Amino acid sequence: MTTPYVSESTLRVRYAETDAQGIVYYANYFVWFEVGRVNYLREVGFDDRQREREGITFVIVEATCKYHAPARFDDPIRVRTWVSEVKTRSFRFAYEVHNQDTGVLLAEGETAQVVVDGITFKPKAITAEFRQRLVSQRDRPA
Amino acid sequence: MTTPYVSESTLRVRYAETDAQGIVYYANYFVWFEVGRVNYLREVGFDDRQREREGITFVIVEATCKYHAPARFDDPIRVRTWVSEVKTRSFRFAYEVHNQDTGVLLAEGETAQVVVDGITFKPKAITAEFRQRLVSQRDRPA
Amino acid sequence: MTTPYVSESTLRVRYAETDAQGIVYYANYFVWFEVGRVNYLREVGFDDRQREREGITFVIVEATCKYHAPARFDDPIRVRTWVSEVKTRSFRFAYEVHNQDTGVLLAEGETAQVVVDGITFKPKAITAEFRQRLVSQRDRPA
Amino acid sequence: MTTPYVSESTLRVRYAETDAQGIVYYANYFVWFEVGRVNYLREVGFDDRQREREGITFVIVEATCKYHAPARFDDPIRVRTWVSEVKTRSFRFAYEVHNQDTGVLLAEGETAQVVVDGITFKPKAITAEFRQRLVSQRDRPA
Repeated sequence: MTTPYVSESTLRVRYAETDAQGIVYYANYFVWFEVGRVNYLREVGFDDRQREREGITFVIVEATCKYHAPARFDDPIRVRTWVSEVKTRSFRFAYEVHNQDTGVLLAEGETAQVVVDGITFKPKAITAEFRQRLVSQRDRPA
Repeated sequence: MTTPYVSESTLRVRYAETDAQGIVYYANYFVWFEVGRVNYLREVGFDDRQREREGITFVIVEATCKYHAPARFDDPIRVRTWVSEVKTRSFRFAYEVHNQDTGVLLAEGETAQVVVDGITFKPKAITAEFRQRLVSQRDRPA
Repeated sequence: MTTPYVSESTLRVRYAETDAQGIVYYANYFVWFEVGRVNYLREVGFDDRQREREGITFVIVEATCKYHAPARFDDPIRVRTWVSEVKTRSFRFAYEVHNQDTGVLLAEGETAQVVVDGITFKPKAITAEFRQRLVSQRDRPA
Repeated sequence: MTTPYVSESTLRVRYAETDAQGIVYYANYFVWFEVGRVNYLREVGFDDRQREREGITFVIVEATCKYHAPARFDDPIRVRTWVSEVKTRSFRFAYEVHNQDTGVLLAEGETAQVVVDGITFKPKAITAEFRQRLVSQRDRPA
């Protein structure tokens, strides 16, 4: 049985990310998801510049988040990111956001991305090589 | 048969809301959803200051968006907002985002909110009066 | 004696724009300045698409803001925008931000923009025609 | 002769921070300045929670930025932050933003903060103890 590769990103809550309720504004979790998937892709050897070289980019077609507990200014945050599904032209990332100090689960979510041509934005099939990077079990890089 | 009240908000895409793909960054649709539900609540007589007077506030527990077509800088946007479900302590807003000029559906989504005490943040039952405002069929105010 | 053309933009404070102090986060005034200058340029016949057709764009080289009083969620805001200086390759916008209900001055600021080629990003001289639009006294369009 | 303490923060450009010109949106440099001053204050023993205990907070009364070169998605950024002035009730932070890889200076700026009571928001004199933390020369903590 394989376990998917899980990338871990850490960040601190910025004042800019809070709102007048004193907690992190709900849309900003999607920004943290982006931090998580950018790091994931870099760690499996597929950063943004590599995508540009291959002439593809990703278009997000769905995003969802469930909020379990609030985050506050200066809280240390850990975002766990992994690939939960790979289809012909699209794949899904799943995310968990924890308070790094307390371990409390703050939020969890998913995004679905379609692979498209970087110029025409037309959907393209995921190559075998990219699929391999997305699904293979691996240890976390040092 | 009743149709729900639908609130319509209009806005223009800000440069700040675009990203390096030349389109609106995906998290910003949730900001537009906020514009939609704030206007909805104001129109049914339940603005933020009224909520403060009643000692309640809303906490978003779930948010989701499906993206159909990109929006670009300066595009005129229309956000349609309505209540799609009311439960004992929570309710859901549904949203549709269109390009106001072309009529193209850009995105649709939902948020689920729990009603909580404004001080303790403990869940509270939705009052009959508030439920009435949320579910009643009504014409759009002039 | 001429008075410069002053463009007026109105907006409402979004929850996303507030922070944990309960007031608008300081960086967001620069987003409102952007709303002001985009409207200004549109009103003098020089919107973003026109700039693209002329093959130029603007690069902001300086931005400053003085904060006089806080803005809060849902406050109605008025941004006044005018051109305060035009040089060979650059020009300055000045801004005043008021609470539309109370008339209180919340903030004032300036941005300096350089005109550059839209492809090479090299500075270009401001054309006589564009200078004319920037400096001419005019009535506010209906 | 004393040199001021300089705090160094590092971050990576988020996609959310870019705009349709393909570069970082100008207002976001002020968010990075916030990252810089929060780290500065933490490093000199004066984090946000300490401020809350002392019953004070800071209100930004002026912010300025000069932009020298653009930053792009995923660029590694270093923010240098130091105190450039301390007056009776206010003080100024100065910032430099560099590309961490190339060393290129991207932007520099300042913010002026007034010390206010955390409840009444009335200006308060800077205490001798806080002044000491702000002005003393010190080595960077390990």
